[in-house]
Amino acid sequence: MTEKRTIKAGLLGLGTVGSGVYKLMERQQKEMVHKVGASLCIEKILVHNMDKKREGVDMSLLTDKWTDIIDNDEIEIVIEVMGGIEPARTMILEALNSGKNVVTANKDLVAEYGKELLDAAENNGVDFLFEAAVAGGIPIIRPLKQCLASNEIDEVIGIVNGTTNYILTKMFEDGMDFKEALAKATELGYAEADPTADIQGLDAGRKVAIMASIAFHSRVVFPDVYTEGITGITARDIQYAREFGSVIKLLGVAHNTEDGIEVGVYPMLLPKDHPLASVRDSFNAVFVHGDAVDDAMFYGRGAGELPTASAIMGDVIDVARDIQYHCTGRISCTCYRKTPIKRFDDVKNKFFLRMQVDNKPGVLAAIASVFGVHKVSISKVVQKIITDGTAELVIVTEAVKEYHMQDALEHLKDMETTREISSIIREY
Amino acid sequence: MTEKRTIKAGLLGLGTVGSGVYKLMERQQKEMVHKVGASLCIEKILVHNMDKKREGVDMSLLTDKWTDIIDNDEIEIVIEVMGGIEPARTMILEALNSGKNVVTANKDLVAEYGKELLDAAENNGVDFLFEAAVAGGIPIIRPLKQCLASNEIDEVIGIVNGTTNYILTKMFEDGMDFKEALAKATELGYAEADPTADIQGLDAGRKVAIMASIAFHSRVVFPDVYTEGITGITARDIQYAREFGSVIKLLGVAHNTEDGIEVGVYPMLLPKDHPLASVRDSFNAVFVHGDAVDDAMFYGRGAGELPTASAIMGDVIDVARDIQYHCTGRISCTCYRKTPIKRFDDVKNKFFLRMQVDNKPGVLAAIASVFGVHKVSISKVVQKIITDGTAELVIVTEAVKEYHMQDALEHLKDMETTREISSIIREY
Repeated sequence: MTEKRTIKAGLLGLGTVGSGVYKLMERQQKEMVHKVGASLCIEKILVHNMDKKREGVDMSLLTDKWTDIIDNDEIEIVIEVMGGIEPARTMILEALNSGKNVVTANKDLVAEYGKELLDAAENNGVDFLFEAAVAGGIPIIRPLKQCLASNEIDEVIGIVNGTTNYILTKMFEDGMDFKEALAKATELGYAEADPTADIQGLDAGRKVAIMASIAFHSRVVFPDVYTEGITGITARDIQYAREFGSVIKLLGVAHNTEDGIEVGVYPMLLPKDHPLASVRDSFNAVFVHGDAVDDAMFYGRGAGELPTASAIMGDVIDVARDIQYHCTGRISCTCYRKTPIKRFDDVKNKFFLRMQVDNKPGVLAAIASVFGVHKVSISKVVQKIITDGTAELVIVTEAVKEYHMQDALEHLKDMETTREISSIIREY
Repeated sequence: MTEKRTIKAGLLGLGTVGSGVYKLMERQQKEMVHKVGASLCIEKILVHNMDKKREGVDMSLLTDKWTDIIDNDEIEIVIEVMGGIEPARTMILEALNSGKNVVTANKDLVAEYGKELLDAAENNGVDFLFEAAVAGGIPIIRPLKQCLASNEIDEVIGIVNGTTNYILTKMFEDGMDFKEALAKATELGYAEADPTADIQGLDAGRKVAIMASIAFHSRVVFPDVYTEGITGITARDIQYAREFGSVIKLLGVAHNTEDGIEVGVYPMLLPKDHPLASVRDSFNAVFVHGDAVDDAMFYGRGAGELPTASAIMGDVIDVARDIQYHCTGRISCTCYRKTPIKRFDDVKNKFFLRMQVDNKPGVLAAIASVFGVHKVSISKVVQKIITDGTAELVIVTEAVKEYHMQDALEHLKDMETTREISSIIREY
């Protein structure tokens, strides 16, 4: 084989994901020349702490100076795996503006500043790829942008947070309550020390913003996404879900409707025969509906050192091919529409409502009439007597606008016979 | 917007899939300029019968002369949806050799002549794409070639035939027997008039050959694939599968092992918690294991007018982008290894064996000793007495080499106490 050129990359960050990228790059060293028609190497690694011991890493590659990367004209690809908004945003912009291609796993950044970064890439004719920013190792950005490009996609629903899916799986399968399942997730390293972003749905919210933007060809940013977490889900809710032939999952939900884009993250009761219902433990999956392809689903590991590195390296290999073929910037921003975002109040959902009421005649009729007043149709009522004095009532509604349901809830709370609104969960 | 150029395509065939491509091309007319930076149109359609009425089709595009397409220098993309080996193969080769890009859905052709066609594409610096040839609308070729490019993939298992999956679903969920389920599939148009290629596993065999070639970077052709159909599966087998917490699926199975590539298609008992187990009806799915990504699965419609057209149009849009960026031929053949194919006799599998034997003392011991002689370890035995004289015996083995199991079976058949070997099914 004749001597091939070497394409050089600069790596920003050497945490969990950065180490994964480094390992994969080493592991695939000999394969690269076949896969991209060129060798591929990491030329420099930007780190905070030059003194920290890092096993298996060539320490001569480390630097704590950004200039060693940005001013090195031989570096054609910058791989950003530091996370967070700054300094990642500034560095990526500088890299793009100096003609370097960028691959990132940074969902926070893409969900808020995606347009700015894609514009900079387009202006400079370079690639800006972020497959790893959504659902870790699962191929989803490229399938949406390329394979399904001829579809009008109207629905994207994802289980895109592994921590909460693990917690809900433990609650459903092993009968744990939320706190116990969270503790187990923390013990296994699935949940971070501060699990807020996971359990409140913020992490999933960023991912669904990115997916909706790509699927619907119209910019959706994180502040557009209504988010609700899983902290209020109880063992009793899970029990009812099972009784109804459903599971409870934290879903990122995006619909492209005639009156705008609906986008949110919240727990939902999902029928057991939906393909997403069998996604267990810390696995992720994204379900897509398009006018041509019909239903499709992408399943796999949404996080972790090597799965995330797999997605990053897929992007890096694609950039390297583009460099070889002089076609960087080949696929840039695909948000060519400006579809409005629907007010969440106007989104229609079915609801599962669990409440404790006085156990006496006429209570159910009064509650039903409140729903009627607020234009909420009821599809199912289950009443279980808990003690002599209190009855547990579970009501499932037809699809109603969020604000009608909120009004009905306010009204229900004010009723003398209402002892507690225990749970309110949406139903798919 | 300034005037953009128009990229012209020639369509070979206007059957179910061809009509789908035509419809999608019409439907996406206005979007194309945003998606590929150019307009895209069908310039000519090659058909057998010029006189047939074709609703909604611009009849002026029809031709029955191949020269109208091959000699038209303005046609840059040929979309082949005729199926079959000839004349498709000759036409595609001529198209590639005259510098036209080709998109095809033709699994028979790619599974047997993939190398020849990819070589021709590479020599001419054009694209040859075939996403639709495997699992219809499901993105699988591009994810394998690009997104998962940094993985060493060791396992690809697919439910890649919708007809048989529909039949097995009906048998499992509705208690139908094979004939009844096949009749239902025919009635619904899932099964063709001659269902042999589906129910004998040949269709799935072609698809698994293509997937294995791409996943393992080494050429696998259809004749390399061991195939076995589902005609022998009975309601009673399904019943046992359920008892064992499994389902029965027709799987395309490919493993990349230290002693070569294993590749086959056969029904298998699959544990209910495997992601493929919940793939129901005529849906398809492909499960992949890679050293970095871990488990991943791709799910969707494996056939049908619009799902297949979705995959074809994804390829066409990609080709159009490559034309715009002067980088056709950017991803060609990825089979850079020459891994041997393992003899199927040497492949190891677990087996589920159902047999009828004389119901008398010592029979089970004699059978167990036959297995011992042939190096087959038993993991489970269930014995049910059917009548006074006959007992039904179900034996599940540990993983053993195929030829050991075949030898044991021959031996068992010859035993005086054996009345019938009723079923022999592999277990995942």
